[in-house]
Amino acid sequence: MSTKKVGIVGASGYSGEELVYRMLTHPHAHLTAVTSRQYAGQTIAQVFPKFSQYALARTLRFSDPNVELLATQCDIVFLALPHGVAAEFAVPLNNAGVRVIDLSADFRLKSAEIYKEFYTHDHPAPDLLAKSVYGLPELYRQQIKEALLVASPGCYPTSILVPTLPLLKAKLIRPQSIIADSLSGVTGAGRKVEVDYLFAECNESVRPYGIPKHRHLSELEQELSLVAGEKVTMQFTPHLIPVNRGILTTLYLEPLGTPDQIREALQTAYLDEPFVRLLAGKDLPDTKNVVGTNSSTSPGVMTRGPIALSS
Amino acid sequence: MSTKKVGIVGASGYSGEELVYRMLTHPHAHLTAVTSRQYAGQTIAQVFPKFSQYALARTLRFSDPNVELLATQCDIVFLALPHGVAAEFAVPLNNAGVRVIDLSADFRLKSAEIYKEFYTHDHPAPDLLAKSVYGLPELYRQQIKEALLVASPGCYPTSILVPTLPLLKAKLIRPQSIIADSLSGVTGAGRKVEVDYLFAECNESVRPYGIPKHRHLSELEQELSLVAGEKVTMQFTPHLIPVNRGILTTLYLEPLGTPDQIREALQTAYLDEPFVRLLAGKDLPDTKNVVGTNSSTSPGVMTRGPIALSS
Amino acid sequence: MSTKKVGIVGASGYSGEELVYRMLTHPHAHLTAVTSRQYAGQTIAQVFPKFSQYALARTLRFSDPNVELLATQCDIVFLALPHGVAAEFAVPLNNAGVRVIDLSADFRLKSAEIYKEFYTHDHPAPDLLAKSVYGLPELYRQQIKEALLVASPGCYPTSILVPTLPLLKAKLIRPQSIIADSLSGVTGAGRKVEVDYLFAECNESVRPYGIPKHRHLSELEQELSLVAGEKVTMQFTPHLIPVNRGILTTLYLEPLGTPDQIREALQTAYLDEPFVRLLAGKDLPDTKNVVGTNSSTSPGVMTRGPIALSS
Amino acid sequence: MSTKKVGIVGASGYSGEELVYRMLTHPHAHLTAVTSRQYAGQTIAQVFPKFSQYALARTLRFSDPNVELLATQCDIVFLALPHGVAAEFAVPLNNAGVRVIDLSADFRLKSAEIYKEFYTHDHPAPDLLAKSVYGLPELYRQQIKEALLVASPGCYPTSILVPTLPLLKAKLIRPQSIIADSLSGVTGAGRKVEVDYLFAECNESVRPYGIPKHRHLSELEQELSLVAGEKVTMQFTPHLIPVNRGILTTLYLEPLGTPDQIREALQTAYLDEPFVRLLAGKDLPDTKNVVGTNSSTSPGVMTRGPIALSS
Repeated sequence: MSTKKVGIVGASGYSGEELVYRMLTHPHAHLTAVTSRQYAGQTIAQVFPKFSQYALARTLRFSDPNVELLATQCDIVFLALPHGVAAEFAVPLNNAGVRVIDLSADFRLKSAEIYKEFYTHDHPAPDLLAKSVYGLPELYRQQIKEALLVASPGCYPTSILVPTLPLLKAKLIRPQSIIADSLSGVTGAGRKVEVDYLFAECNESVRPYGIPKHRHLSELEQELSLVAGEKVTMQFTPHLIPVNRGILTTLYLEPLGTPDQIREALQTAYLDEPFVRLLAGKDLPDTKNVVGTNSSTSPGVMTRGPIALSS
Repeated sequence: MSTKKVGIVGASGYSGEELVYRMLTHPHAHLTAVTSRQYAGQTIAQVFPKFSQYALARTLRFSDPNVELLATQCDIVFLALPHGVAAEFAVPLNNAGVRVIDLSADFRLKSAEIYKEFYTHDHPAPDLLAKSVYGLPELYRQQIKEALLVASPGCYPTSILVPTLPLLKAKLIRPQSIIADSLSGVTGAGRKVEVDYLFAECNESVRPYGIPKHRHLSELEQELSLVAGEKVTMQFTPHLIPVNRGILTTLYLEPLGTPDQIREALQTAYLDEPFVRLLAGKDLPDTKNVVGTNSSTSPGVMTRGPIALSS
Repeated sequence: MSTKKVGIVGASGYSGEELVYRMLTHPHAHLTAVTSRQYAGQTIAQVFPKFSQYALARTLRFSDPNVELLATQCDIVFLALPHGVAAEFAVPLNNAGVRVIDLSADFRLKSAEIYKEFYTHDHPAPDLLAKSVYGLPELYRQQIKEALLVASPGCYPTSILVPTLPLLKAKLIRPQSIIADSLSGVTGAGRKVEVDYLFAECNESVRPYGIPKHRHLSELEQELSLVAGEKVTMQFTPHLIPVNRGILTTLYLEPLGTPDQIREALQTAYLDEPFVRLLAGKDLPDTKNVVGTNSSTSPGVMTRGPIALSS
Repeated sequence: MSTKKVGIVGASGYSGEELVYRMLTHPHAHLTAVTSRQYAGQTIAQVFPKFSQYALARTLRFSDPNVELLATQCDIVFLALPHGVAAEFAVPLNNAGVRVIDLSADFRLKSAEIYKEFYTHDHPAPDLLAKSVYGLPELYRQQIKEALLVASPGCYPTSILVPTLPLLKAKLIRPQSIIADSLSGVTGAGRKVEVDYLFAECNESVRPYGIPKHRHLSELEQELSLVAGEKVTMQFTPHLIPVNRGILTTLYLEPLGTPDQIREALQTAYLDEPFVRLLAGKDLPDTKNVVGTNSSTSPGVMTRGPIALSS
């Protein structure tokens, strides 16, 4: 595989930081641009001292984001920007033939109306919705390889869709019975400077939030419905727990088949998938076994929690 | 109310420590005996330096447990012992007319067979099962007041039964639909010196455990069945999260009534209950709002997590 | 002792919250006013749900701060305000005969010049500096009892002065040799909404800060110099550690006497002090033995860490 | 550089786990043997699920330790064993020409008497003490390259010696003035199943330990004395803080030169050292900038905390 020139726009948040790390250490990536209005002029090593050991981190400097320049510097550009802002980069970069992998929610939905319902503003580039590919490699690997615009799935949806979709496809669960109870580390909220995310507000505490209608429900129900062949509505309760990283989702699903059939459907689906590991026998998941372990060959999926199926 | 003489047997674990604190600060309790084989001879303040400010803690010494002596020293004795051991104190103390509040699981079940099924050994005093009262004040307040033997409910069951029972009683939920997803701090396991509870094994991590048949299911299904008037089977998934204390349970219940009816049933049930606080409007629970706050007038219920009803 | 009517101005920060708790549970205090511009109109229980069990918390509402009203409602007023702001309450309240206990740094120093050097603005009420009493009860108990204006010591200075002053007074340490290495929980910074105090910036990390000239050096060197009878300059390195509360200071002092003389000097000084506990033999301090334990009779000293003397 | 065959003896502790990770990802290492009596027969991926993504981890199995076999399988063997046990592997492996890097304290000291004084048992192989090299690359890089037996330095000594030695060599600090105040994460104690390291005993707490004579003082004073040309005695206070990994040491040193001379001496010493990064201007260290970042080319130094020089 040839080495690709890679840029990261909005590289100063937690997602951006992780992307920078993965691109610095990726055998087929060459990081050529990192942008951040706040840190323009500083090297990666100055902003993220823990990457100082990488020679490139000591020389590559953050710059102000500039679409024209990025188009000349990069084969692929990651967007780690807030939703609503990504389009102004995605459109011209795609037009210039540059592949875009967007980490925001902007290109995950197929419907501009549902986008507006959940994100409370008009979609900035509705024409692109039909072209973007939902970047879950277990579901859309071939399309991702060819896509000009990849929408990286949300963290919660990844942990929920991976175990659910094969069972839905095999008609082994009742589509309208899906309940997901999810626990997330605090970086999931991004580097937001709000009182809710202060150390003493999160430490020694746990709380649900964003119910009953968390934004991730929009992409969850879209993908579940596509696979089920009917409109799916589900229950989703996210909780904030005092760890930096990691998601654990416990699913409650009404089975239409036997435990053996369910086990087999999952094994068949994920036998050859490098990023999904099925636990055997009485083993139970633990986030410390997965946090930070995703190989850099699937950059669209930043974190993937383990799965507890309660069937 | 007159002051009662109180003893605590097995006072060196996390439950014992909390009991000691509550008895030292309780306006109607006078702590007269604390026992611990390991710490016999030391004062409370030597074993738990944080209680040094209480004069009694600086003078009262741990002793070896001695039933005859306890019977002369105490009106009420708390047992903070492992299950299977409590009976050897409960029987003679009750015989001597001393009231016993047992924090172990030994007297929570009405059936010795179910006890054996879940705790894997014969019940040590099956005759007492009929006499003991399940110490949930919201359910059995009057019986607790008169009981010689009170079985303090498990931590998880308290968080699950309180929101569920009024709805079950009012036939507002389907009895066989109950799902409880619970998160617990690490002291819930007691001061067990096992690799699973080491700091670096719990910190920055979260994991389910004890599924599919956690021991607390035995008392949960007993109490749910009693109220429902039919044999209830439920789903229960406990998780360990990196906090010292606190339980948060999210319940998934199939409603048989409207949200307003459900809200009203809970309000009616808990309007005058001092230890149950119903959240209003869009408020969501957070364990930091309840950890350590239970008033000392309900010693049988040591911790009570907040409740998320997903109805 | 008669019950005093107490008010708290700026009661919505971490210090204010702790003050509210202590006043709600204090046998000789009756909380009559709590002020907060942000929370005006809400009850204490609404702002701090964990205090819901106290009847007064369910009825007493936050109000906008109003000096005239406070003067009629209170015998004593605590100020939990940022430095520079406390004076506008302290002056008129004192004039109205109301005693003031200020938790800010505004009245700790005797010199308006040193105040300006460390706090970078002019002192708002230099006339009051001579009248205020530095509220360390072990040093100024009698003056505190009579003072109209008490300046509650800083958290670090409390942990440093208590072990150092008796040794300095007895000429058992060289005055210019004092080194204090301190570790503080994150609430020490207050509820500041800054990126440095976000959960993921503090968790799993430790860092020094505020060197070489932390603001607390001003009151430290003032009090050390007063007792030493010479101008004392010291070394102080504060560190932020990932706990909510607690301070641990390790002191390095050049001895002018024997270990026995040093031990004796400390024992003599603190034999009858209820809030200072000297460890015996090989015992070492641990913050979990002191966090939250200070009795409410010394409101000027909110937290007191244990002491490691390396002599 | 040619690829070396590497074995790890005692690979199931925290140090062993980190070694396994570094060898799995090292471009010039090929892991051929991992031993653990407890896990013999299981693959690396079964014992450490987070390494499942590495093909070798899914096939290489733990075996019982067998010196003869290791000698045929490995060019280099790491020993991650308790002190006192390493010699029985080091002697025969060295005799068979296999290079040994020992992570225990067994070969750090030059004096068997001092070993006995600090480790309380006779040294198991005193003849090897003269041959072993103290594995601090900044000090003994050339000797490490040629050594058959490398003694990996202790975690605390690494954080203390690196900033101190160049200043001692340049006679810019008084040799007898060295004070080191160190903070360590809990994995520093190894995977010890003791009550002191339980989650709830470490979380929300901080404490000093091992004073006045922590075992690491023996190697610290040995290396300091060698460089100073006189017998050096120092002060050292280790503390346990609630993080998994990372060490932060604050040093207090009496200067014999100007701040500029000190800065220059450090810059000269570490200009070309890849693992020592000097902070500029007002930057202060933070363990999150270094935890887990040491490049795999210096396997003898597992963690290196940042340095606060208070000069």
